Amino acid sequence: MLPKLTQARAPLTREIFAVNELGETTVVSIPAERPLTIYVDKRELVTLMTLGAHPEKLVLGFLRNQRLIESIDEIESITVDWDVGAAAVKTRQGISDIEARTSKRVVTTGCGQGSMFGDMMAEVDQLVLPAATLSQSQLYGIVNAIRLQETTYKSSGSVHGCALFRGEEMLVFVEDVGRHNAIDTIAGWMWLQNITSMKGDDKVFYTTGRLTSEMVIKSGQMGIPILVSRSGITQMGHELAQRIGLCTIGRATNKRYLSFTCSDRLTS
Amino acid sequence: MLPKLTQARAPLTREIFAVNELGETTVVSIPAERPLTIYVDKRELVTLMTLGAHPEKLVLGFLRNQRLIESIDEIESITVDWDVGAAAVKTRQGISDIEARTSKRVVTTGCGQGSMFGDMMAEVDQLVLPAATLSQSQLYGIVNAIRLQETTYKSSGSVHGCALFRGEEMLVFVEDVGRHNAIDTIAGWMWLQNITSMKGDDKVFYTTGRLTSEMVIKSGQMGIPILVSRSGITQMGHELAQRIGLCTIGRATNKRYLSFTCSDRLTS
Repeated sequence: MLPKLTQARAPLTREIFAVNELGETTVVSIPAERPLTIYVDKRELVTLMTLGAHPEKLVLGFLRNQRLIESIDEIESITVDWDVGAAAVKTRQGISDIEARTSKRVVTTGCGQGSMFGDMMAEVDQLVLPAATLSQSQLYGIVNAIRLQETTYKSSGSVHGCALFRGEEMLVFVEDVGRHNAIDTIAGWMWLQNITSMKGDDKVFYTTGRLTSEMVIKSGQMGIPILVSRSGITQMGHELAQRIGLCTIGRATNKRYLSFTCSDRLTS
Repeated sequence: MLPKLTQARAPLTREIFAVNELGETTVVSIPAERPLTIYVDKRELVTLMTLGAHPEKLVLGFLRNQRLIESIDEIESITVDWDVGAAAVKTRQGISDIEARTSKRVVTTGCGQGSMFGDMMAEVDQLVLPAATLSQSQLYGIVNAIRLQETTYKSSGSVHGCALFRGEEMLVFVEDVGRHNAIDTIAGWMWLQNITSMKGDDKVFYTTGRLTSEMVIKSGQMGIPILVSRSGITQMGHELAQRIGLCTIGRATNKRYLSFTCSDRLTS
């Protein structure tokens, strides 16, 4: 039983005047950045700064990736109203001891939603990722699909993008001013598509952002065994990926890349 | 009376093996990313994920930019121990109603320390920035100084850098896996140098990161009237910069740039 979701929309870019090095006034397009305060059963939980493309899916994925809800069935409705910048989440049963579970604050390296509640790190060792491989040509296909994607980034820059692939087939592409908003939006999308974390097996996650600890943890939580980035990896991202057997591929542009962990998952 | 600070150090990069597109195993250097849990008078406040270059200054600047302390005199000591990933802050008087002041959570677009406590936005309108100008040649000098700076980024990528300038003279350069850690570290440095926020007048702040709302607010809080970035600006960053009269210059590379707000502060 899927939750009722609004379809709140708001402009993603705005044109402003800027002055360039020649002193010329030019019109440039910049991405939106707006606060979205999440209320769970009328209790204020957090305010996210977001581009605002898919607020309902963002909220759903945020609650999922923060492990505040175990199943989408727990959510009755998510109502977003941009006039007040609020997302009202109605649960069927309420969230047990939400106070305690949101008390511990971890401010992460990641962008956007750089805050993980609870002892997520402790859950890492329980993650078991399915065996999965990606061929080099599929990887090149993924990088090319991203290149061809029409994006807010192309029109205005300053946003992160991420996408979910099956092989080289792009299933969904999401952008946000915070890349953690983008990955959480995809987590919400997966739930709505009934792609549970147990079905991440044949999925590949692409992000324009750096492979930090939080990106690796979230990818692992979503059951996705292969993580591709245009950017690099941090030491903790590297250690965690090794620990959970996640294949991380970075600096992926054109036909170049570096496989940092589980390189055996990458076939020629 | 300056606080007692440890000089905790830890390696900033680590070499790992990676496999490139030719199937060759190569050694690459990656940046550290480590948790630092801040305890204020033995009360756990937050855990930051950081590169770890200047943890004491980071903690000092974090407390300052979160407006948890008004004056550096309030801090007796900051003791960082990387073996346990902890920063113990001892205040002289304690922080009044710290519970209430850290209860509101805003997860921002920014990287690193993407979490602002309290109603920072409400304080924005109280910010008054000093009149200050920057010449085009000084701007080019800033961009060039950044280009010449030896960086962790150059050796391993995946970090953000920021720097404080007086004209084109670089006063301090800081990198972190989170750019908000970098800006807060500089805020801590400024306090230790006794450059109070009232003395940001002739300063220019440079960041590799995007000019989001939080970057603009923090720059404003530090009293710095000119903000330069290699990257772009978001809509809220733009609106806030206009509101407080902050000159924002983005896409600054080589001899090109875009001045988004208060372009009159930029002289030829």
